[in-house]
Amino acid sequence: MRKIHVIGIGAGDPDQLTLQAVRALRSTDVFFVLDKGEVKSDLTRLRHDMLDTHLPEGAYRVVEARDPERDRGAGGAAYSPAVGDWRSARAGIYERLITEELGEDQSGAFLVWGDPALYDSTLAILQEVLARGAVAFEYDVVPGISSVSALVARHRTGLNRVARPVQITTGRRLAEGFPEGVDDVVVMLDAHQTFRQYADQDVDIYWGAYIGTPDEILVSGPIAEAGPRIERLRAEARARKGWIMDTYLLRRDPGRE
Amino acid sequence: MRKIHVIGIGAGDPDQLTLQAVRALRSTDVFFVLDKGEVKSDLTRLRHDMLDTHLPEGAYRVVEARDPERDRGAGGAAYSPAVGDWRSARAGIYERLITEELGEDQSGAFLVWGDPALYDSTLAILQEVLARGAVAFEYDVVPGISSVSALVARHRTGLNRVARPVQITTGRRLAEGFPEGVDDVVVMLDAHQTFRQYADQDVDIYWGAYIGTPDEILVSGPIAEAGPRIERLRAEARARKGWIMDTYLLRRDPGRE
Repeated sequence: MRKIHVIGIGAGDPDQLTLQAVRALRSTDVFFVLDKGEVKSDLTRLRHDMLDTHLPEGAYRVVEARDPERDRGAGGAAYSPAVGDWRSARAGIYERLITEELGEDQSGAFLVWGDPALYDSTLAILQEVLARGAVAFEYDVVPGISSVSALVARHRTGLNRVARPVQITTGRRLAEGFPEGVDDVVVMLDAHQTFRQYADQDVDIYWGAYIGTPDEILVSGPIAEAGPRIERLRAEARARKGWIMDTYLLRRDPGRE
Repeated sequence: MRKIHVIGIGAGDPDQLTLQAVRALRSTDVFFVLDKGEVKSDLTRLRHDMLDTHLPEGAYRVVEARDPERDRGAGGAAYSPAVGDWRSARAGIYERLITEELGEDQSGAFLVWGDPALYDSTLAILQEVLARGAVAFEYDVVPGISSVSALVARHRTGLNRVARPVQITTGRRLAEGFPEGVDDVVVMLDAHQTFRQYADQDVDIYWGAYIGTPDEILVSGPIAEAGPRIERLRAEARARKGWIMDTYLLRRDPGRE
């Protein structure tokens, strides 16, 4: 039976790999790397460096494939369906990769930045491939250090306050309002710096980009003060590198226990 | 200058240690272990096993201390203040440990189950010790695999659905109602199996206890079906081992993408 590992490889620092992840890498015959179109060469290189560090040279095979283009024009209510089409297109590619590139007794791996459980579609795609029924395989998941954990560790703060909740959400959702009943909110996938919307409120921001890598940038403070600095640093870094991965925690009423 | 590492050591599986955590363990002179009173000997043993695996015998020192009793009788609005008193008492102990047990140029470490960012008070206590001003030290945080990540990895599911939020909260909060605007909710610190309250709704539960250890138990399904099974297994396990650490994800409208 074919076997697939979905391996969380941490948020950017190669030392955030767990021992379990290293073991999974070493039991993998074929690594599947899906190129995002917009080539994030730094990320691809980081991934290859990880493999070179933990695996003997020539002992592994990497198969690269092109990710289908996603219809990023679709906004608002159309967002989820567009993602659904994109996911089906990806399922076709994954099915082909597993069927054609993996021998009956071999194991393959998808390396996922952060934690496969957070805003990543690999698991859903694999379940869709299995549901199609054209190829059978076993799979397991190796949890990883999420960008959320990495962010707050670098800021040396917690996600939640005593006995209180924390919500992880998207920039799109945050634009609709601060979530009800929660004062600690982590925002991912925000291309529009939605935090600016809350600059007139008593909210602290803990922001980070390229966390755990040599390019890491960290800024924290009240949004009114830290916000403009984040906007400037973010624009500069994005122009310099061609891409950015950032995330942030908003903490409302920061003075409260 | 004294140096303190706050090291997330994962949810129970010793292979969930990151390479960064192993490196931090190896650069530590003194490990501080606070005994919870109710002796969780399995957990203490697991921690010692980790140290023995990664450090040369005799190369490290462990200092054990007694955690102050927490006023668990205080419920409702009194919860946070009781926690605050308890934390101050702990700050006194941590201050003494760092001052008396750590040389000026030594490094100490607190080993935290899961991720120090989630429902753990070590960081807040260290900040309180620094604010008291009696002892100076540097500190850093090594993120760990949280029980939340470990739970969903074992269930091979994600925390969030496409473009949707996830909230992490406590049993006490969940008893007040399902959080507003969120359909995926992770519940920690729930001694009362609050999920039972939602057994008549279209909610799936993904539950796990002792995740990543040889005692691991996993149950998932609609609450109406899985709930009674979880109650039974939980009561049996708790009676057998004398303690339980469990957590769960509730997924409302599980059929929806």
